[in-house]
Amino acid sequence: MPEPLRLGIAGLGTVGVGVIKIVRQKANVLAARTGRPVEIVAVSARNRDKDRGVSLSGYDWEDDPVALAKRDDIDVFVELMGGSDGPAKASCEAALAAGKDVVTANKAMLALHGQELAEDAEANGRVVRFEAAVAGGIPVVKALTEGLAGNDITRVMGVMNGTCNYILTRMEGAGLPYKEVFEEANSLGYLEADPTLDVGGIDAGHKLALLASIAYGTKVCFDAIELEGIERISIEDIEHAADMGYRIKLLGVAQMTGRGLEQRMSPCLVPADSPLGQLEGATNMVILEGDAVGQIVLRGAGAGEGPTASAVMSDIIDIARGTRLTTFGQPATTLEPARAAKSTAPAPYYLRLELQDKPGALAKVSSVLGEAGVSIDRMRQNEHSAETAPVLIVTHKVTRSALDAALSGLGGTGVLAQDPVAIRIETV
Amino acid sequence: MPEPLRLGIAGLGTVGVGVIKIVRQKANVLAARTGRPVEIVAVSARNRDKDRGVSLSGYDWEDDPVALAKRDDIDVFVELMGGSDGPAKASCEAALAAGKDVVTANKAMLALHGQELAEDAEANGRVVRFEAAVAGGIPVVKALTEGLAGNDITRVMGVMNGTCNYILTRMEGAGLPYKEVFEEANSLGYLEADPTLDVGGIDAGHKLALLASIAYGTKVCFDAIELEGIERISIEDIEHAADMGYRIKLLGVAQMTGRGLEQRMSPCLVPADSPLGQLEGATNMVILEGDAVGQIVLRGAGAGEGPTASAVMSDIIDIARGTRLTTFGQPATTLEPARAAKSTAPAPYYLRLELQDKPGALAKVSSVLGEAGVSIDRMRQNEHSAETAPVLIVTHKVTRSALDAALSGLGGTGVLAQDPVAIRIETV
Repeated sequence: MPEPLRLGIAGLGTVGVGVIKIVRQKANVLAARTGRPVEIVAVSARNRDKDRGVSLSGYDWEDDPVALAKRDDIDVFVELMGGSDGPAKASCEAALAAGKDVVTANKAMLALHGQELAEDAEANGRVVRFEAAVAGGIPVVKALTEGLAGNDITRVMGVMNGTCNYILTRMEGAGLPYKEVFEEANSLGYLEADPTLDVGGIDAGHKLALLASIAYGTKVCFDAIELEGIERISIEDIEHAADMGYRIKLLGVAQMTGRGLEQRMSPCLVPADSPLGQLEGATNMVILEGDAVGQIVLRGAGAGEGPTASAVMSDIIDIARGTRLTTFGQPATTLEPARAAKSTAPAPYYLRLELQDKPGALAKVSSVLGEAGVSIDRMRQNEHSAETAPVLIVTHKVTRSALDAALSGLGGTGVLAQDPVAIRIETV
Repeated sequence: MPEPLRLGIAGLGTVGVGVIKIVRQKANVLAARTGRPVEIVAVSARNRDKDRGVSLSGYDWEDDPVALAKRDDIDVFVELMGGSDGPAKASCEAALAAGKDVVTANKAMLALHGQELAEDAEANGRVVRFEAAVAGGIPVVKALTEGLAGNDITRVMGVMNGTCNYILTRMEGAGLPYKEVFEEANSLGYLEADPTLDVGGIDAGHKLALLASIAYGTKVCFDAIELEGIERISIEDIEHAADMGYRIKLLGVAQMTGRGLEQRMSPCLVPADSPLGQLEGATNMVILEGDAVGQIVLRGAGAGEGPTASAVMSDIIDIARGTRLTTFGQPATTLEPARAAKSTAPAPYYLRLELQDKPGALAKVSSVLGEAGVSIDRMRQNEHSAETAPVLIVTHKVTRSALDAALSGLGGTGVLAQDPVAIRIETV
């Protein structure tokens, strides 16, 4: 019998429990597919006594994940605790220093410290793998790192935060305001402990930064992402978008241009009948474009016990089979610093302006926009009862910087009752 | 500098040329991603003098692919000739016997001889890889073999023959009859030398059989596929389907049941607004369902120089990186013989019957179907001028065997002017 692959699992939340279930229930399948037994040796979590609906018998317990990471009797340290720093990072570092491979679902840690961990791993002849960190069950890290490795990647796009997509589709489906659906999602446990990670677009931004690194051979550069969350999307925006045949999605786009790497994660209007527009609930979609392969679209569950555990298992199975890959598709020391560029491709925009209900306000808006070179495709002012009047505008194609200049000019006129909402329209 | 990975390429059609272009144009990217140079040493094809739009300078030429396969100075034999037997099979066998790895795009060869080749390879410590054999540029073999390896696969579905999908969507788009679009596709070079491979569903069946082997750990069993082509689909069927909100697709389904492995490749009606229904032209879609991951949908170009070469390159890159995988996801000697089962799950069917235009014909149809237990959901007889009257029926759910019995009963009544058309309705 060949040597078993011995796992130490730190973090026994939903995903950790999912991994334990698969390892316990599918021992025969895993052995057949990898050629060796896959075993859990020890586990660690904050609370030993919690009932997790799965037996931990036969596994050693460690209170300290760092101690778990260093154990002589594990081959792979499986980090499912989360958090960009603290115990997650300390234990991954300890595991690599002790000669263990690392499998993690931790996008925040990798987006901020992935370069350092990858260099550590490669210096020690170890691997850090993270399929579960991006788009849940969709094998997108594998598709990009391996399946499309013969391509120059021209664009990476995607809806990669299930919680935001749940909130946006639920608002539309039930006609509910953002705040109410946010509270509902929170009570259902869909939101991170710090909800800004989800609704601020940060979590999705972490994922985009990881994919961009693989796609373009650059060091992960989360800080350079043009980041905007969904907090300011109102039910009115969603309804107006629907009227025009669009749906609002938190969409990430990364592309390499002559000026550098553009990365943005922000709400966009996409055609309602497009694959992205049709995405419901917590489903994720990633679109990969390569010079040889053309466009590949991947869709699946972006979160949840089974899908995320499935992704963790694929990394574990790779290691059990002897597949040894670099973290970001090429040696970490050969990754170039990302030269960050603002996205300059012009696009049409949806604008919602709340105007002071005074004579001449609308004329002033038109004239300021016109002078700033923002050309109006459609404009609508609906009936209103309050003291402010909502005005909806769809612009012709304009760069974001020209639009921002125009909006800032509008701010100086005193006709705006609140900051304008501007959402890019993507015709994907 | 590490040792280069040295390729011998047999077959310089579209795909072979695409691979040469990538190896020539992306030498730096490939070396960065694999850690070693990837080089072409020698090539082989039927005609040395043909202008292929790509330089072959620097490559040795072999008239005989078997001689190429055995050369001491190659590491990987890349088989892109096609054909289930003959030179393709002989040269792959020679390559494995000579200790070379094999990368192939040859679904016909693998569907018929994959077990033998895989056993050969594994006995010699070599690999046979075939990402390009299924669904062109979509990395579906990798997704199934590696990405979802922690799952019990519950179902594999897909539209995997771009030519058939081109014909069906072109018929609908242009309102043209099958025969005319078939000739058009032929003149565009879209059809195999033996067009039955495409329109008879055989090529798509080969692909389904390969995916089923990986999914269920069974020996490839192409012969057991319930196979039906698109030759009998008329423009009327397509239009009737559209009227009812459906589109007709050549759809493959493989699933393991208590009775054994069901595999079918046949035209089906699918909802027009579903991801499968929206598939245009030569695009492919594969849907993988696993107990942990849920449903994963993969879409991309199913054929063509770039997409197929991208898939070939992913296998070459895996080998260059040192990834060593079994052909069908577990050692070939451990694959179980597939216990083939007819699919018995009931489904609604679309029927088109051409009736003799005689009094009482329709009443006879209703009564025969009713007696056979086939319950009618909708029935329509349109105006007609000819001597036969087309009758369209949508049944309630019925098993295929009950339906076949009913149709055979109808045949005995003498009211049918031609064999009935029966197409399963899939509500995917």
